This record gives sequence, structure tokens and C-alpha cells, in this order.
Amino acid sequence: MAASSSTNPMSGEEATGVTLLPAVEDRYGGVMTEMSQPMDPSAFSALLRSSLSNWTLQGKKGVWIKIPKELIGLAETAVKEGFWFHHAEKNYLMLVYWIPKEENTLPANASHRVGIGAFVINDKKEVLVVQEKTGRLQGQGIWKFPTGVVNEGEDIHDGSVREVKEETGVDTEFVQVLAFRQSHKTFCGKSDLFFVCMLKPLSLEISVQESEIEAAQWMPWEEYTKQPFVQNQELLRYMTDICAAKTNGDYQGFTPLPVSAFDQLGSLYLNTRDLQSRH
Amino acid sequence: MAASSSTNPMSGEEATGVTLLPAVEDRYGGVMTEMSQPMDPSAFSALLRSSLSNWTLQGKKGVWIKIPKELIGLAETAVKEGFWFHHAEKNYLMLVYWIPKEENTLPANASHRVGIGAFVINDKKEVLVVQEKTGRLQGQGIWKFPTGVVNEGEDIHDGSVREVKEETGVDTEFVQVLAFRQSHKTFCGKSDLFFVCMLKPLSLEISVQESEIEAAQWMPWEEYTKQPFVQNQELLRYMTDICAAKTNGDYQGFTPLPVSAFDQLGSLYLNTRDLQSRH
Repeated sequence: MAASSSTNPMSGEEATGVTLLPAVEDRYGGVMTEMSQPMDPSAFSALLRSSLSNWTLQGKKGVWIKIPKELIGLAETAVKEGFWFHHAEKNYLMLVYWIPKEENTLPANASHRVGIGAFVINDKKEVLVVQEKTGRLQGQGIWKFPTGVVNEGEDIHDGSVREVKEETGVDTEFVQVLAFRQSHKTFCGKSDLFFVCMLKPLSLEISVQESEIEAAQWMPWEEYTKQPFVQNQELLRYMTDICAAKTNGDYQGFTPLPVSAFDQLGSLYLNTRDLQSRH
Repeated sequence: MAASSSTNPMSGEEATGVTLLPAVEDRYGGVMTEMSQPMDPSAFSALLRSSLSNWTLQGKKGVWIKIPKELIGLAETAVKEGFWFHHAEKNYLMLVYWIPKEENTLPANASHRVGIGAFVINDKKEVLVVQEKTGRLQGQGIWKFPTGVVNEGEDIHDGSVREVKEETGVDTEFVQVLAFRQSHKTFCGKSDLFFVCMLKPLSLEISVQESEIEAAQWMPWEEYTKQPFVQNQELLRYMTDICAAKTNGDYQGFTPLPVSAFDQLGSLYLNTRDLQSRH
């Protein structure tokens, strides 16, 4: 195997002649190594032990090992050496170990899924609603806002426009986040952030996504709010009131602006009306 | 191994006499099995194949296998049978497989880490600021708002009060989310949601968290804003303006209210001032 030390990345050997795992340093005093080739468990175990000794001498803190799906057999050895799991994605498992005696300050795994509910209302005060084919509301004849999960790497405003288009075929323009809800233990112990978004329709014709949606329509607002399902759920009553206050009143949510930090662009959602800005 | 079918959970055998993995059904037409005992790879492989055949006949969709850290050696067999990784936590790896020919509708892995920045200002217009021991700002003499990561299962308002207490010893009461920022590719490809929170101080004495914080103090607001670091970062300029608008003007953020949905309590963050509520 091609291996090198973190201090001498071009060589597979330290001055002592011991082969070490290749590693790159991170900003927090740790090292990361990515497995790329199959290896005999006992050879991997020896390599891991000598590397850990070396990193301990160097005063390193966190040690990360990324194992691709095809080499998952190597994970057992790392676990035996004291590693645990940090996170996994479709094609890899990330293991981690903490060298110092003090409590670890490793970054947490992603903890939240992000969902959106889209409030889309037209000039005739009709709201865009759907019936779902799967999930807890299926087959109950309930009309609800289009909802969906924001993809990894996707902005909330882009995700809500995409979900409305996919489910109903309607083109929209993002207006504001009107509110959001945080809840816990929703799926495998993870937490959820659900953003109630207002979008302005740019088209009216409906084309239903057959895989997930049973039906979609523009429904008079009063008819939507009269549904027992909407009346009985506290969250939906709040959403109804907020949407009504936005349509008929002066309710101000958060508007996204592109804002950079540390040379990275992101979207800042804020109450632009209330801000006396110098920007 | 104790094994049972999903249709006959008390028995390890179907009418055909084939042993199957024990499984529980989920709400989305899928099944989940949790490995609990070591097994020979070839035995596991045979069991997995017969179980998959059975679940296919039953019309099941997603198949989940939860493998505890101690049994990670079993993952290699599941990967060879076509499974991939869905997510991992400290002590387990969750693998998944999709039976139907159609595109999978499996729930996404958690995609976001959630952070907070705490704006705490006292009656003398002094803001609570810290210098960090680690990370990209260490050793630069920069005074910044206390920041931190919200724990899994923790509410944003609780997390911000906790972080301020841990880093500075100051007791606070949560007031509002003033804005939030979404950014991407921050750590291992995950996204970040960073909530700018205003908190009201309930105590003034500072006691620094020695592991992470170099120093903390109450700093005159003007002195904080004059720092080149604060002037040069677009995000920090916005935060400064928003916080000033909140202190001196009429800026309205989102206030949390306990709101239930589907018998589960969560926190709904909304513009309570602008809402003409019937609640």
C-alpha cells in the first residue's frame, strides 16, 4: 500500500523505518486518512497502531479514517483499535478516534433534516394544495400544502421552488420564510427543521407528479381552512393564521439575501423591512 | 440466531421452512432488521438472500439493516448483496436497499448541522464577547459573539442559552431569532444553518470556559463594531446592523412558541408582533 506520514507526505517511511498511514492535517489539530486499497486485517491493524503512536507523539487530537463502501471490511479492525463511527454517506463510512485525555471537541455529525411547506396563493385567493400517495395522510382525502425535504447542498428558497414544481408543475418565485418549526426524534433520532415558505405563482396550470401525489388543485382559501384536519392540528391553525396575516395584513417574515462570510457565499434570511440598512 | 419473518414475528421459519431475518415494518412499506449477534458471513449472506426474496414477494420497498459497532464485520456481506450506507451514529451503521424498480423514495440522511450566534447586550450597551482558543480565529485577538453547535435533540433557544452559560458563565433568557444563514459544504459536504439569536442577560459576572475560550468580557458596542474583522466580513456587518436595529429600533425577529403537530410538541418560531392571532 502507498503510505506516508503526515509530516513527510512523499515518503512511506519515517526516519525510524516504520510505515505509517498517509494523512492530511485538519485545522483543529487532527489528521485524516482515506483508505483506498484492500489490506489484510493484521497488516492494517499494525499500520494503524504505529500511525496512532506517531500521531500521539506529534500531539495530534482527532484521527479520522474514511472507508469507502467497497473496503468496509477494514472497519472491524479500526473498531477493535478503539475507533467509533462519526457519520456515513451512501458510499463511505467515517470513523474517528480522539487521542488527548481531555473531553473530545470533535465536530458533531449533521443533526437535522430540513423540510419546507409551500404556501402558494393566486389572485383569486385560491391556495395550491395536494393529496399525497404515501405517508401518514394517504387515502384520507386531506388537502395540504406541498411539502418536501431540502436536498443536501440546496438552499431553502431553491428547494421550495423545486418541490412545488415537481409535485404540481406550477412555477413559482420565492417570497419569504414566514415561520419555522423545530422538532425532535422524527427519524432515527434526528431532529427536523420545517420552514413555512410563501411563494408567488408564476404559472397556474397543474401537472401532478404521479409517483408521490394523488391529486393537486387550486382550492378556495376558506375551503382549505375549513377542513377538520386543518382545524384540529395546532401547527396547521398557526400556519393558517400566519398565511392569512401575510395575505391580508402586515405580517413580515424573513427574506433571503446572498451574503458572504469567510469568502463563502450563503443566504442570510432576515426581516428586511425592519432593517435600516447601510448595505 | 433468533430469526423471524415480518409476517410471523414469533417464528424463525416461514411455512416453506426457510429461516428469515427478523424485521419490523415501517410506515412507508419497508422493513427494518437490527443485527444483534455475530454470524458467519456465508450464513448471513444466505439469510439475507432468502429474506430479500421473501420481502420482494411481499411487495416491500425499502430494506433497512442496523449493524451495531461491535458487529461491523457483517457490513461487508450486506454491501456485497447490494446494500449501501444510509447514515451512521457513534455506535451503529444503518444500511439500506431498495427493492422496487422505480426510483427510491427513502428518507434522506440528516443534511444540516445547526449552529447559533448569541447577541447578549446589557443595560450599559455592552455586548458579551469572547476570544476562542481553537478554530480559524484563534490567536488573532478578535472579539466575537459566543457561538456554538446545537446538540442533537436540543431546541435552538435552549442551545443558545446553554452555549452562553458554558462559554461565559452568564445566565440569559432567550428573546428572538433575529436572522439565520444557510451555507453549504462546510464539513464533510454537509450544510449549515446558523441562527443569530438575541438573549437577555440575567447575570453579569463572567466565568470563562477554559477548554475552548481564551477570554470573555462585556465590551462597549461601538468598540465591538469598530474591529476590522467585524467591518470586513459582510455577514458580520449585517449582523451588526440587525442587532443595532433590534436594540435601537423596531426590528422584529421570530419568537418561539410551543406548538404541537401530530401529538408531538415542537417550537414554532414566528413574528408574533405581526400576527393577529386567535390562539
